Amino acid sequence: MTRYRKGANAERELVHLLFDKGFSVIRTAGSGKTSLPAPDIIALRPGRFLAFECKAWNSKNLSIPIASMEEFLGWCTRAGVQAIIAWKYPREGWFFMKPEVLHNTGKFYAVSHKEAEKHNLYLEVITGIQAQLR
Amino acid sequence: MTRYRKGANAERELVHLLFDKGFSVIRTAGSGKTSLPAPDIIALRPGRFLAFECKAWNSKNLSIPIASMEEFLGWCTRAGVQAIIAWKYPREGWFFMKPEVLHNTGKFYAVSHKEAEKHNLYLEVITGIQAQLR
Repeated sequence: MTRYRKGANAERELVHLLFDKGFSVIRTAGSGKTSLPAPDIIALRPGRFLAFECKAWNSKNLSIPIASMEEFLGWCTRAGVQAIIAWKYPREGWFFMKPEVLHNTGKFYAVSHKEAEKHNLYLEVITGIQAQLR
Repeated sequence: MTRYRKGANAERELVHLLFDKGFSVIRTAGSGKTSLPAPDIIALRPGRFLAFECKAWNSKNLSIPIASMEEFLGWCTRAGVQAIIAWKYPREGWFFMKPEVLHNTGKFYAVSHKEAEKHNLYLEVITGIQAQLR
C-alpha cells in the first residue's frame, strides 16, 4: 500500500472510532482538493471539540514539517478546538498526543516511538469519557 | 451554470464571508464523495460553532427533502453546533435562517422567498458580532 492509501485507511478507522464515541465527525478533503487548509479530521460533540492531524507511519520517528504543524495549530486556535496528533502505528495501534510532545528539530516537529508511547493519551480521555489516570 | 456549479460557487463565497469574520471554516466534500453525511460548511470560532446547509436557488421557494433536513439537524445536535439554512438568492444576496422557519409540506421542508426575507438573520448576528435588533 502506498503511504497515501495507508493514511486514508487510518483516517477512516479513526473516523469510526470517534463516531462510536458519540461524535459528529468530518474527514476533510485530501490536500490539494480543497482551497483552504484544514485538519485531517474534526470531531464535535457538545462541549468537546477536537481536531486531528493524522499519520500512519511504520517508523521509529514521526516528523511533521514545521509549516504544516503551525498551520494546523493556527487553525485549531482560531477555531477554539483541541489539537491532537494521531499516529497510527501499523499492527500496533494509535498514539494520541498533545502537539507540545513533539520537539522542533529545525525543519520538523518530531517525536520518537518511545516518546509517543510515554506520552500517549487514551482515546477515552481525549474524548472526555474518562479522566487521565496517570 | 449548472445547479451544482452555482451551489459550489455559493459555498465558496460563504466560506470566505465566514473566514473574514474570524472563523476556521471547512467546506465538506461533495455528496457521494464522502462516506459520512456532513453539513456543507462548518465554521468554528471559540465559543461559536456553526453548521450550514447551503443552497443557491433562483426560485420563489426553497425546499429541502425531509430526510436531508433530519440528517442535517441530527448531525448538528450530536455535534453541539448551531444549524443554519443559508439560501443564496442570485443577484440579491443571502438569507440565513433557523431551520424552524421552514415548514413541513409532507415531502419537504420549505420556505418562500417572502418568509425568508421576513426571518432573515444578519450574518453578524449568527456569527456573534452583534445582537439581533429586531
